[in-house]
Amino acid sequence: MNRFIKTLVFCILMTFNSSAFSNSGDEMIVRISEIEIKEEYLQEYKAILKEESEASVRLEQGVISLFPMFQKESPTQVRILEIYSNKEAYELHIKNPHFIEYKTTTMKMIKSLKLVDMQVMDAESMKKIFVKMANEK
Amino acid sequence: MNRFIKTLVFCILMTFNSSAFSNSGDEMIVRISEIEIKEEYLQEYKAILKEESEASVRLEQGVISLFPMFQKESPTQVRILEIYSNKEAYELHIKNPHFIEYKTTTMKMIKSLKLVDMQVMDAESMKKIFVKMANEK
Repeated sequence: MNRFIKTLVFCILMTFNSSAFSNSGDEMIVRISEIEIKEEYLQEYKAILKEESEASVRLEQGVISLFPMFQKESPTQVRILEIYSNKEAYELHIKNPHFIEYKTTTMKMIKSLKLVDMQVMDAESMKKIFVKMANEK
Repeated sequence: MNRFIKTLVFCILMTFNSSAFSNSGDEMIVRISEIEIKEEYLQEYKAILKEESEASVRLEQGVISLFPMFQKESPTQVRILEIYSNKEAYELHIKNPHFIEYKTTTMKMIKSLKLVDMQVMDAESMKKIFVKMANEK
């Protein structure tokens, strides 16, 4: 029951938040960042990325997703699903002190970095997937 | 205002729904499928994948996300973010007629296929990202 109330309150808060901005969907920037980390820095990098991603999604309205994962078989291979409301949100994000700090402190830890711009295949169903994801767990 | 009320009602309904099933999070299967499509079949493949993904997420409770994208610079390079509640949900999915039909009809269209198992880096923040994604658009 406690969990139910928490989820409900969170949903209501997010509803207020969502009513403050809207997006046609076409403007969204979707990207998979492919990052290889130097093995000796892996734990340190993960801690910094975790903090930066969480803060960006929490504090920046236009940062919809910074969803970091790593490959189970090659843990130094990091992938981040990044979704921004639009180009302006992305531009704001990379000027944010959080991001600049992340970028500066992790520079020496990164072996390779590829920012791969993606096109969503089914924009209509995307919303349903996100709602289902939000309600899982 | 109308949109606000609609979102709020939807959130409340989804909150009830979410309390009907729960998941520890550790059991979740997260994967990025890396698929290269033969150029001559690209449009046909996209249409089939779009239908299969939409139906699986809509009809199968344990299929949380089949989120298909393609690389803007190499449109034959498809990536699918797949999330299943647990191993059982995945096993059920691959036995589903929808999936079997997709697999059979697209076999000749696929140049290469790599199923990359991923580990989520920050399970605590994942939920917040999903809620934010659901409230965008």
